[in-house]
Amino acid sequence: MHRTPIVTLTTDFGLTDSYVAEMKGVLLASCPGARIVDVTHGVGPQDVLAGGFAVERALRAFPPGTIHVAVVDPGVGSGRKLLRVDIHGQHVLCPDNGLITWAWRRLGNAAAYELIWRPDETSATFHGRDILAPAAAMLASGGSSASRISGPTVKPILLPVGPAATQPAEAEVIHIDHFGNATTNVPVEAILSVSPKAIRFGPRSVGPVRRTYADVGEGEALALIGSSGLLEIAVCNGSAAHGLGLRVGDRLTIEY
Amino acid sequence: MHRTPIVTLTTDFGLTDSYVAEMKGVLLASCPGARIVDVTHGVGPQDVLAGGFAVERALRAFPPGTIHVAVVDPGVGSGRKLLRVDIHGQHVLCPDNGLITWAWRRLGNAAAYELIWRPDETSATFHGRDILAPAAAMLASGGSSASRISGPTVKPILLPVGPAATQPAEAEVIHIDHFGNATTNVPVEAILSVSPKAIRFGPRSVGPVRRTYADVGEGEALALIGSSGLLEIAVCNGSAAHGLGLRVGDRLTIEY
Amino acid sequence: MHRTPIVTLTTDFGLTDSYVAEMKGVLLASCPGARIVDVTHGVGPQDVLAGGFAVERALRAFPPGTIHVAVVDPGVGSGRKLLRVDIHGQHVLCPDNGLITWAWRRLGNAAAYELIWRPDETSATFHGRDILAPAAAMLASGGSSASRISGPTVKPILLPVGPAATQPAEAEVIHIDHFGNATTNVPVEAILSVSPKAIRFGPRSVGPVRRTYADVGEGEALALIGSSGLLEIAVCNGSAAHGLGLRVGDRLTIEY
Repeated sequence: MHRTPIVTLTTDFGLTDSYVAEMKGVLLASCPGARIVDVTHGVGPQDVLAGGFAVERALRAFPPGTIHVAVVDPGVGSGRKLLRVDIHGQHVLCPDNGLITWAWRRLGNAAAYELIWRPDETSATFHGRDILAPAAAMLASGGSSASRISGPTVKPILLPVGPAATQPAEAEVIHIDHFGNATTNVPVEAILSVSPKAIRFGPRSVGPVRRTYADVGEGEALALIGSSGLLEIAVCNGSAAHGLGLRVGDRLTIEY
Repeated sequence: MHRTPIVTLTTDFGLTDSYVAEMKGVLLASCPGARIVDVTHGVGPQDVLAGGFAVERALRAFPPGTIHVAVVDPGVGSGRKLLRVDIHGQHVLCPDNGLITWAWRRLGNAAAYELIWRPDETSATFHGRDILAPAAAMLASGGSSASRISGPTVKPILLPVGPAATQPAEAEVIHIDHFGNATTNVPVEAILSVSPKAIRFGPRSVGPVRRTYADVGEGEALALIGSSGLLEIAVCNGSAAHGLGLRVGDRLTIEY
Repeated sequence: MHRTPIVTLTTDFGLTDSYVAEMKGVLLASCPGARIVDVTHGVGPQDVLAGGFAVERALRAFPPGTIHVAVVDPGVGSGRKLLRVDIHGQHVLCPDNGLITWAWRRLGNAAAYELIWRPDETSATFHGRDILAPAAAMLASGGSSASRISGPTVKPILLPVGPAATQPAEAEVIHIDHFGNATTNVPVEAILSVSPKAIRFGPRSVGPVRRTYADVGEGEALALIGSSGLLEIAVCNGSAAHGLGLRVGDRLTIEY
């Protein structure tokens, strides 16, 4: 039996309005068998970097063929392009505003196409519902739809953020999660073979790279490899964001 | 193949308790094939107007046959009626407290019936789980269930809010969304043919009706037609609610 | 037709990150027919008691065979055990840290087994995704999986909280919900036959046990039996938590 692909949704729409549900209504109207999964709708308004980080993590967790629709779209209604990106055996549909950056640079082997399909009528402010959701439904329905909705390959807009190279001198905070853990741009493979002696935030050291939160006492700060394979700064059963004052864009020093 | 209808849920239950899941458990126990979609559970506690606005938007986005369960129910356990409303080719199950007002007045062609089905036992405080969810499961299962669960037509309670008539002198703010956009009660068809010169909030003008956010500079206020076809006041990549101090119930002047 | 069991998720992960979606991606990759329902992801960080309260309510609402995955796990990566608990005709997969306490003591007839299945590779910080989600997928797929993933029975760790005995002198607040209603540990059967004259919080009486919110005036405090069959303190269309200053752990006096 053909099983309809999973369609995931990542947006900055929040959960207090009907916007996310409207996308789902449109998806299910065209593709009644779609299995829809929310990645998050809690991306900060217009926070393209955070949206792209969630998409990259979703790409690692979902099976081949999954269609990820990502809408963090400050330029909606302007001339910005829409994209279909083929990456990690899956599709991402999103605006061409840098949202794909982190996945593009970390997962590699990607190709981007301009998404050219348009409905007869569209609002000027809600392309997630009016263009991306029906395009995802077409992709999910299979057949020749990928080529029908997309044009030639394009070079996507990329933000100035990417995984650190081997033995980096610095780590950049790229995400603060719900618990206050601070994820950096340093992949496990870039540092574990060279065993940093300490990670520092300004004058403060959080020691070497530990294995898990419980390796330090309650309320103590530590560095560890988080669940996406990136160097993370945390506080055991506490918040590194609050405790250390860490924010996205902050830089840490890595000592060998 | 018969496909089980979609059942949507709109409540003021929030997402920190098990209440929404309890409704879903009851629905799936009686109707295992139900496809359940959350519209929102972030309606303000007892905010019947906001709940009704979400339901009307959902009715526009979901396919025929969808069953919308809406529970914003300050009178739960009192003598208030429950309703089954047939509208826009879909059903709404909700308390008779004005929740259906906006959909009733904007979409028209509706009929309301008293929902008379009751289980053998019910709590006095959670009719969403104990009455509306099983009633939705019965409706979703098809057959003669619509008539079995409902009594004769009734005139639903309606709140004093509705779409403005043609060339209105005033617009009333009826919803503030997650981004701080302020939606008014003025439908596109009531003003576009008469091209307002300016929309004013007190002494402040936000200019004529623009097409999209990007038609003004970052941080500037504007008026436009939002994605539900209503006049909306917004700030480009900002919040009209914060920037202009707009709140539900505020009135704007429309100049021709 | 075999219908794949429902899998529910209860966590303290919040909704701003991709964590919940990563669990769902893993579940759907192994068990494509799984029907996944969120109970809540709004449990306070590391609030094991609140997580366990949500799980018990979910067990009452979902059909037999449902698999509940609960992840509130301050000891992740340490030596704490994982459990499969068979209870109320359903399964709970969770860390052995007291999360099962309220369900264990209120629903009874439970058996706990150590969950011994481990993947070839696991992160040290996200066992919900790396162990519990695939274990749930195995359980959901049926066959002999319950015995393959679990070891011998164990005595689970239990917190010092449980339902009050008959005619209790005191009620303990065990949960504050989204509306500010305060649920206590006193089951309906422990007090209704002995009709308390009044429930008191310090010097303040909220009167006898009423039937529903509307039995008192708007803004007035009352005691009633809530929708999980427990004594609850509420304020009609208001918040008992704000109005009376009630918090989890507070004790009320019951007068006969």
